Amino acid sequence: MNGAHALISTLVANEVTACFANPGTSEMQFVAALDGVPAMRPVLCQFEGVATGAADGYGRIADKPACTLLHLGPGYGNGVANLHNARRAFTPIVNVIGDHATYHRQYDAPLNSDIATLVKPNSIWAKSADSPDAVAGLAAEAVAASFGPPGGPVSFILPADSAWLPAKGEPVIAQRPVRPAPAGEAVEAAARAIKAARKPVVLLGGQACRAEALKEAARLQAAGATVFTDTFVARQPRGAGGFAPKKMPYFGELALAELEGVDLMVFVGTTMPVAFFAYPDRPSVLVPEGCATLKLCERSEDAVAGLAALADALGAPKQGPVQALALPEAAPAGKLTAYAVGASIARHMPDHAIICDDAVTSGAGVAAGTAAARPHEVLALTGGAIGIGLPLAIGAAVAAPDRKVLSLNGDGAAMYTIQSLWTMARENLDVTVVVFANYTYRILNVEMDRTGAGQAGPSARKLLDLGDPNIDFVSVAKGLGLPAVRCESAEAFEKAFADAMAQRGPMFIEAAI
Amino acid sequence: MNGAHALISTLVANEVTACFANPGTSEMQFVAALDGVPAMRPVLCQFEGVATGAADGYGRIADKPACTLLHLGPGYGNGVANLHNARRAFTPIVNVIGDHATYHRQYDAPLNSDIATLVKPNSIWAKSADSPDAVAGLAAEAVAASFGPPGGPVSFILPADSAWLPAKGEPVIAQRPVRPAPAGEAVEAAARAIKAARKPVVLLGGQACRAEALKEAARLQAAGATVFTDTFVARQPRGAGGFAPKKMPYFGELALAELEGVDLMVFVGTTMPVAFFAYPDRPSVLVPEGCATLKLCERSEDAVAGLAALADALGAPKQGPVQALALPEAAPAGKLTAYAVGASIARHMPDHAIICDDAVTSGAGVAAGTAAARPHEVLALTGGAIGIGLPLAIGAAVAAPDRKVLSLNGDGAAMYTIQSLWTMARENLDVTVVVFANYTYRILNVEMDRTGAGQAGPSARKLLDLGDPNIDFVSVAKGLGLPAVRCESAEAFEKAFADAMAQRGPMFIEAAI
Repeated sequence: MNGAHALISTLVANEVTACFANPGTSEMQFVAALDGVPAMRPVLCQFEGVATGAADGYGRIADKPACTLLHLGPGYGNGVANLHNARRAFTPIVNVIGDHATYHRQYDAPLNSDIATLVKPNSIWAKSADSPDAVAGLAAEAVAASFGPPGGPVSFILPADSAWLPAKGEPVIAQRPVRPAPAGEAVEAAARAIKAARKPVVLLGGQACRAEALKEAARLQAAGATVFTDTFVARQPRGAGGFAPKKMPYFGELALAELEGVDLMVFVGTTMPVAFFAYPDRPSVLVPEGCATLKLCERSEDAVAGLAALADALGAPKQGPVQALALPEAAPAGKLTAYAVGASIARHMPDHAIICDDAVTSGAGVAAGTAAARPHEVLALTGGAIGIGLPLAIGAAVAAPDRKVLSLNGDGAAMYTIQSLWTMARENLDVTVVVFANYTYRILNVEMDRTGAGQAGPSARKLLDLGDPNIDFVSVAKGLGLPAVRCESAEAFEKAFADAMAQRGPMFIEAAI
Repeated sequence: MNGAHALISTLVANEVTACFANPGTSEMQFVAALDGVPAMRPVLCQFEGVATGAADGYGRIADKPACTLLHLGPGYGNGVANLHNARRAFTPIVNVIGDHATYHRQYDAPLNSDIATLVKPNSIWAKSADSPDAVAGLAAEAVAASFGPPGGPVSFILPADSAWLPAKGEPVIAQRPVRPAPAGEAVEAAARAIKAARKPVVLLGGQACRAEALKEAARLQAAGATVFTDTFVARQPRGAGGFAPKKMPYFGELALAELEGVDLMVFVGTTMPVAFFAYPDRPSVLVPEGCATLKLCERSEDAVAGLAALADALGAPKQGPVQALALPEAAPAGKLTAYAVGASIARHMPDHAIICDDAVTSGAGVAAGTAAARPHEVLALTGGAIGIGLPLAIGAAVAAPDRKVLSLNGDGAAMYTIQSLWTMARENLDVTVVVFANYTYRILNVEMDRTGAGQAGPSARKLLDLGDPNIDFVSVAKGLGLPAVRCESAEAFEKAFADAMAQRGPMFIEAAI
């Protein structure tokens, strides 16, 4: 057994069984060793940002890490943006980064770079296995570290000689860390403060937005608190049968308007809300003036236990409000808008679908339409780096092959990782892709105004507009192996989407809005 | 005038007049300010790796930096792989990286990350302009730093408030550094050693491979030394009318076979040659055993002066050998191969064309066919991070609008930055793109064998093979706005390529080899 084989064996022994890969020469031993461990599923991505985004989607749904296989510093670099998003989603990921043989590093060959520094900003653990016998132990340590809590991407650097030399064969099993319940004093303090407050808000983030936690949060709502979630949540159930908390609006001034009169904010699995960007003369912190703040539990703690204890301390009823099913009866008609798309999705999306949302300015329309749809889950853009909606869907579909996956994307966002479509075709994933084609970075037109930068002249417009030429997404998607259709009316979208839901396998819909 | 305006004014005052951009909200002030400085040409790229690769191509041809405009850490991250290549090409580039407002950084908003650490591995200079009045001075410092010598990418971090607040208006002019001539002792030592050697080799890299330097190097060849260049050179003239040195072979064992019996290697503008990758039981250093080595001049020094002085010291003739024009008379026929493509290129490529080479395993065939073609220049993949052939061509075409640009790409390489095609269409660049479609990472099949990793089984094959489905590149290219054609025979390629050379504007050819 060589080091590469030891690595894959240890990963599989620790339930890491999916590998999103874009290998090069320094990873050939890992690639060859895959045939000795068929429990590891290799998924080829023709760009590393697809691999890291897919690993994020996989980790959010499977609640365990996938691994990636990346080619030295530049390969990792291509994956940085989606690892930034994964870090902000607290998703466990084990990045395996091939490197030159240990003795070859000193010669600074063309692909050599300072990997250790490059990985730092987006790794919660990073080590290099500089001998083959270190591989198995460090791999187990990497898996354990990826769980945090609260979890995140780790970087396992694998020099080529550590991969090809003989290694100890016994896989090492890692202990998964446990999330501790928040301290009793934190629960009591929150209960006292909520009782004393005129208009208390509970703000949920991360694990506090999962199904079990939302059940307990609903009890707080029944007890008189208003429950919000962060604007962008890694994974959250929505639709019928669950609790539907409010969401913090994206724009700071809207958030503060929503929070007017609130005199207490209790944070659960999240931190103080802040504006996504700073703007001249607008606030950075989204807490009303004079409002007290308090933390019930850290991101690393057990949000379900914390919320349940708080609900009990408040004497809340055993069950809170539940969203009733309410589907649009009539098919949408006329001009195609994000709201029409949302209505069609609500009408046809099956139970337990997974929505990967990178729809930017079209997202609100879909969210409005699907709020009372069949139960589903939404994976949001946690780190603001657009280009994750397609890769996330790959990972979600690999993690949950029995669930329908929807990937909703702005056209600008889709272009970052358009290579994803090929992987969907190759793996025959049950993903329906929607690209909202408005041929502009619409959000930037809005932001240009908000930053006080003034009216866009010809030079500025060249950087905001995605037309001239308009991309023919159907042609691109077909070229990459997907069946594809363009819809220019609500009727056309309704039919295309219903058809997609009635079949299995990948489908691409260009929504001309 | 605000900080953004001051920045662009200073860049333009320092002859930085092209901006390859993928902006976001934090860059809106920069975008708006572009309208006040029309001398700066904004070029939108729908992915940051396109922007950084284009800046590399621009810098190699213009011999001055372009700037990029990137959106915080993730935007820079997407550009890392091609900045790695640019660092290895020693290309001056000024990366402008937007960041949160200085006072907003403390809140760790979703897009916040450790930019200073992320940029380190691929920046030869990096600073953040944390006040608007610091912008102009630091921008001038950034431009100067990008020239080195030997030059490379620099990172200028622009917080949003430094962009939107009022700033001093006077642009600051930077002093361009001068490359010193190598010391007289180095020249004398090299001359003595060459005279005493039985079989001396002179190895050129970087600036020593430019036109003026090659003229002097040809004199050394005439004086009895054998002249080689590095395997991958940032910019090198080839074809008729110039000197045609040998090239160090990619595979180490072939390089050492070429160098058999060599007892002296003199390095000019480069360092000791090493294997691109390490392999079990193969050497890392590509210098024959017992061969002496010597440095004539550093990468930072004036290679033309050094080579001329050495030629004089050796009493070399005033002119060395010159490549005669020799074009294939007959059009290639039959099966389409890289060699047939090379023959067609040689027959029809106009004078002073620029070849951007990311053709991987197809590169050798083209190089063989074009060695005696009309004078042209080749920009090679200096850092081993595939995915630069398309972006390089954008930058080269923007820098030299009167020259025909050819972009030659392996299919796997083209997919990394396929978004480039859209920018070529939008800017109507005079670029002919060739993608060699063999539906496999061919190089990895070769490397798998060389690393001793054994035969690829079903799992490994899944990571080496790019078929299932085969990408229809014509459909993808047309979708992104380019005229496109697929060629399955040498005759078809000959016609398509001749047509492309006879017109101006972008053209895409899928070469099914």
